[in-house]
Amino acid sequence: MTLPLGYRYASTYVGLRKQPDRNDVALIVSDGPAAVAAVFTRNVIQASPVHLARENLKSSRGKACAILVNAGNANCATRTGDAAALATCKALAKTLKIKPQYVLPASTGVIGVELDHKLIVNALPQLVSDLSPDEASFERAAEAILTTDTRLKIASEEVKFRDGVVRVAGMTKGSGMIHPNMATTLGFVLTDAAIAPSDLNPILRRATERSYNSLTVDGDTSTNDMVALLASGATRVKLNEKERKVFEEVLTWVMESLAEQIAADGEGARKLIIIRALGFKTDDEARRIARSIANSPLVKTAIAGSDPNWGRILAAAGYAGVEFDPSKLDVHLQRELVCKGGLAAEFDEAALKAKLDAPEVRIRVTLNGKGKGQARFFTCDLTEGYIQINGSYRT
Amino acid sequence: MTLPLGYRYASTYVGLRKQPDRNDVALIVSDGPAAVAAVFTRNVIQASPVHLARENLKSSRGKACAILVNAGNANCATRTGDAAALATCKALAKTLKIKPQYVLPASTGVIGVELDHKLIVNALPQLVSDLSPDEASFERAAEAILTTDTRLKIASEEVKFRDGVVRVAGMTKGSGMIHPNMATTLGFVLTDAAIAPSDLNPILRRATERSYNSLTVDGDTSTNDMVALLASGATRVKLNEKERKVFEEVLTWVMESLAEQIAADGEGARKLIIIRALGFKTDDEARRIARSIANSPLVKTAIAGSDPNWGRILAAAGYAGVEFDPSKLDVHLQRELVCKGGLAAEFDEAALKAKLDAPEVRIRVTLNGKGKGQARFFTCDLTEGYIQINGSYRT
Repeated sequence: MTLPLGYRYASTYVGLRKQPDRNDVALIVSDGPAAVAAVFTRNVIQASPVHLARENLKSSRGKACAILVNAGNANCATRTGDAAALATCKALAKTLKIKPQYVLPASTGVIGVELDHKLIVNALPQLVSDLSPDEASFERAAEAILTTDTRLKIASEEVKFRDGVVRVAGMTKGSGMIHPNMATTLGFVLTDAAIAPSDLNPILRRATERSYNSLTVDGDTSTNDMVALLASGATRVKLNEKERKVFEEVLTWVMESLAEQIAADGEGARKLIIIRALGFKTDDEARRIARSIANSPLVKTAIAGSDPNWGRILAAAGYAGVEFDPSKLDVHLQRELVCKGGLAAEFDEAALKAKLDAPEVRIRVTLNGKGKGQARFFTCDLTEGYIQINGSYRT
Repeated sequence: MTLPLGYRYASTYVGLRKQPDRNDVALIVSDGPAAVAAVFTRNVIQASPVHLARENLKSSRGKACAILVNAGNANCATRTGDAAALATCKALAKTLKIKPQYVLPASTGVIGVELDHKLIVNALPQLVSDLSPDEASFERAAEAILTTDTRLKIASEEVKFRDGVVRVAGMTKGSGMIHPNMATTLGFVLTDAAIAPSDLNPILRRATERSYNSLTVDGDTSTNDMVALLASGATRVKLNEKERKVFEEVLTWVMESLAEQIAADGEGARKLIIIRALGFKTDDEARRIARSIANSPLVKTAIAGSDPNWGRILAAAGYAGVEFDPSKLDVHLQRELVCKGGLAAEFDEAALKAKLDAPEVRIRVTLNGKGKGQARFFTCDLTEGYIQINGSYRT
């Protein structure tokens, strides 16, 4: 990990999570006001912190000094949710001596249970005094935002520009209720480059499209999703237009890595599945094909069972709502041709079954013709574990 | 069961299904040409029998004498599929001394495996000589079309009109790769009323909308789906416009019962889930809400675990792509108010958990306002059984 300059991290356990083995509140603080871009869930039902984060970003004109996250409670669909979110932001602002609109709140956990915000508020003085820029603090903060995740999800990159080195680091959580159409899940990505909010916004949107919005675990879109990108400018490295392109690419790597980690740790998942669709009329059509395959429980259970059941891949492509000529469709599983021109290809079933036991499974769907549209999608296999986790999540 | 007049049934085992404990070919024959309406899968990938059935219906102008169904092989995405479907239809036509276009072929089973049509052709003489109008033969035929189903799925009704009694009976199969957007799965519904194909078509389409198209098991749309309605006219009871309305209602009961039976026997399912959405702007919006809830793996696993996790129902309503005011939304679970105006309602958790152990679970989502749009959707809970069945279906 190479962490960007200008940030400090802290985390603690305040009692929102039932199991005290993992912290449940994380704090990320920027030394000065950082430029911020954020994408939020498009669910009609939105949690109180999502509303407030949006408002704060508006009144701060895209600036923030702190991200305050809690796990264990989504602060959504409750009577006191708005007041609770506001009270924690105000208390943190007071402790940090900043304006309340410079705080971005985020919550994740169970929906519809009143959040006792005093648990968070009371912990703030200690939390703020614990703030530290070191890697261990970053990792503990990243651990505090997890819910049913089994692993830490962090990624970082650095890149050298004309005026100096710039770093990008991110933390995220999975691992159920994950579906594109926004920033799925919570993700916080930090950089020490100096970029104006107006430039940051389109960069985050495009990077999100290629990472978080190309990811599905179970097709469920959460009420609390948010991905925020902060640029502290602590390096004072300003980027010209060409450098901003490079920065966007590096940011996308970090966000793709985070998205892959979410898919690989999908609830109950044993395998990461990476789906590529090629040769369709447009990128959007390719995306719909890849997404339809990624969403198919039948494809996902077949992969769980290492069953090269390419007929299900074909069927899922067929109901994606995209018109295409089935006789031009090839399907590759683990780089092995299993379906040629819409028909069964000859392949060594036993050998392919063995290859499907790998922790990473690649599905490629190619439409042979003139189309240049392509897309990539991340998902995971569907196992008994998903059912076990979700049949008793609240209780 | 009251069976309609004018039909005979037979079934046999020809070796397409690996387990010989269940027949794999079913034959339904109408004594004379019956009027036919049919709906087919909208998947871009369509099995050979779907193509041929569509063609035959066109050239016979909506008439048929026989339905020939096999399980164990979908006859889809294979080199010899079209020829195989044609050869079986021709052979049956010859044996029955009818035109080949009077045969409706249908297949269900694994995709992408060549169908050895001789297995079917060789069995036809015996199959035809076994034809019988009795209930046992009807039930054995209904059993022969099943795949991963654990139960027979049949329903019947009768209704008295001015000119006499008319009967409706249907058989269907589940139980995975079930999703609306057409006739999901195979369904064959027979009546002895005298109705012209042109009248039959809109009746079937509307009844399908309220039954098969309001049903989802796993969101996967098969390549082989088909629902056919035959009217033998054996009673010579012709219906006037008002009577056709009543007939449509009775037909819908039969088809709803079949759809419910499919949902209740969804792969791995322990519970039938019936979702009602009320008070939305239009029936279509209500439908999208009900369907989104029916498709949510998180809702379905919660119901499997008897967990009254209404937050997931709220979230699924929220991402249905329908705009509504969350503060006007009520959610009932087993007739118990669990969410009032988008917020947690007071309810007895332990008592509700016990109620959720029932084999039938009712979810109601009501938008309080002026809207009159409503819809009903059938689905099932999502259990470890679904994963076990689908992780090793082919092998």
